[in-house]
Amino acid sequence: MEKMKALLVDDSNQESVMILGDCQKPEPAAHELLVKIEATALNRADLMQKAGKYPPPKGVTPILGLEMAGIVEKVGKDVEGFEAGDSVFGLLPGGGYAEYCVIHAGHAMKIPDGISFEEAAGIAEVFLTAYQAVIWLGELAPKETILIHAGASGVGTAAIQLARELKLARIITTAGSEEKCSLTAGLGADLCMNYKEENFADSLEETFGKNCVDVIIDFVGSPYWDKNMRILGMDGRLIYLAILGGAKVEKMSLVPILRKRLTVRGSTLRNRDDEYKTRLTKAFHNDAAELFKHNRMKPVIDTIFDWEDVEEAHSRMANNLNAGKIILTGM
Amino acid sequence: MEKMKALLVDDSNQESVMILGDCQKPEPAAHELLVKIEATALNRADLMQKAGKYPPPKGVTPILGLEMAGIVEKVGKDVEGFEAGDSVFGLLPGGGYAEYCVIHAGHAMKIPDGISFEEAAGIAEVFLTAYQAVIWLGELAPKETILIHAGASGVGTAAIQLARELKLARIITTAGSEEKCSLTAGLGADLCMNYKEENFADSLEETFGKNCVDVIIDFVGSPYWDKNMRILGMDGRLIYLAILGGAKVEKMSLVPILRKRLTVRGSTLRNRDDEYKTRLTKAFHNDAAELFKHNRMKPVIDTIFDWEDVEEAHSRMANNLNAGKIILTGM
Repeated sequence: MEKMKALLVDDSNQESVMILGDCQKPEPAAHELLVKIEATALNRADLMQKAGKYPPPKGVTPILGLEMAGIVEKVGKDVEGFEAGDSVFGLLPGGGYAEYCVIHAGHAMKIPDGISFEEAAGIAEVFLTAYQAVIWLGELAPKETILIHAGASGVGTAAIQLARELKLARIITTAGSEEKCSLTAGLGADLCMNYKEENFADSLEETFGKNCVDVIIDFVGSPYWDKNMRILGMDGRLIYLAILGGAKVEKMSLVPILRKRLTVRGSTLRNRDDEYKTRLTKAFHNDAAELFKHNRMKPVIDTIFDWEDVEEAHSRMANNLNAGKIILTGM
Repeated sequence: MEKMKALLVDDSNQESVMILGDCQKPEPAAHELLVKIEATALNRADLMQKAGKYPPPKGVTPILGLEMAGIVEKVGKDVEGFEAGDSVFGLLPGGGYAEYCVIHAGHAMKIPDGISFEEAAGIAEVFLTAYQAVIWLGELAPKETILIHAGASGVGTAAIQLARELKLARIITTAGSEEKCSLTAGLGADLCMNYKEENFADSLEETFGKNCVDVIIDFVGSPYWDKNMRILGMDGRLIYLAILGGAKVEKMSLVPILRKRLTVRGSTLRNRDDEYKTRLTKAFHNDAAELFKHNRMKPVIDTIFDWEDVEEAHSRMANNLNAGKIILTGM
């Protein structure tokens, strides 16, 4: 059995820490690629999984890491379209914090020319989540208006770019600081609101009029419910990717849903099945690869750490110091 | 100016009543058909409009009547696919309680062989509403499970038949009496629950297990919210066509929406634009005309009145005595 190095969770003390250790190098199944990882990116789920609060789905490697970029070393016998030596990136159910991983070939994408491994490692999770939310679930149509809450978050920055490039949308964002507002403006937001300093629904109505929003991407939940309902226009769509601010709406009225023919939808990416992720990966890559190649879209990278400094990287994320993706490299 | 007879609202006394009177015979615009009406059907909106509570949209005739069946007398100059003498039926923005009406040619359908004018007059409103809810908004997939609240209502009976014939669905209904439950069972419901005598969520879970429902068609609203959320399965869809039982949900939780990736949608048919109604009419007619012809679907007709007895017909509907459509004929 071949061995490889990986970052493993040491939970023998009160606080779990990551340690570099040896484990078994995976073997690709017929539908998989074996990839030599060059870079991986952090996700909030990593911190939860490390703390024992977010166990991976059954049958999935306990190694952390939900995305990666690297070089194909071996191709499963049923795989078409990839060969050894290809530079690829994509979503993983786990296993990115290691020298090698296997990836479902349907979830792997070739890295567009001009994109580094470090950049590519930070694309899959946020852009696929945003693509699913904006294009598939939100069904954003050309020139529509989209409100992206937490616009400076990883998924937020990806959603802005997709709405801008694929749908020429009018883009409105909320964020919690002037710095974050500037980041979203730089990516193309037409109006950025600091939710700590203004009521976003009032500001929106003043700027663009009542019922002006077609699609909302929300991560916050109950604190924004009434305002979201108020500013959505006819046939508006409200997409939940998280409910970080609270799940209970004290008095929810069905009237705007019926009268404005609204759609309210929730979704997460991680619990989707392989077939769905394959379709999503393909649709995203078809629409977006050229845009990355021509620098019209790019992942927002916060910092790049050597993977041996993973604890420092985790602490940066745990303290909400990052704006954009935190990358690990040097495997 | 040619005259015709129509039923007009006399609101000179405390209680409005319908009276037969003379008014101007309409002229078809370039995109319209002039139809000699043979039968029309009652809708609840008629009672509201008569009472002055539901004014028709701007530019629409004040004559009541949202659907009809009859014979084409004259064809607008831009219309293709229809000629004088064709038997047609379809949705109207108003104007069915009259000898003649004009109808947008995109909203007219040819009456399938073997279907009478009285039957055809009762198809459009309930079947198009149900088709929109079940097929377009609910996206019912083959063999899925659908729960149709108020299953014995006009739209409910149409939804059962569409789910049965077009999607071979497992069909569950609620209704308020044994008689109504029997009606829905006769139309193909696999499980019918009397909501006055049982908790439908408990009964459903006992019979088919937890999280067993893919699509819910609801007219009730807040009293059913928690139960609806509980029984929907992964990727379930909840479609509101009305909120007759109350609009305010206390302590609404977003958790099931996110965790089960639910979609909640509201819609009414009347405020849709002409282009939407044209697409809906075409899609429905393509899918359903053959089924009517071969008697595999039929509108549930309650009673047929001579149009001079319209007050008796209205009173039957106002007192909830009907099971199925009430038809007016004899214009």
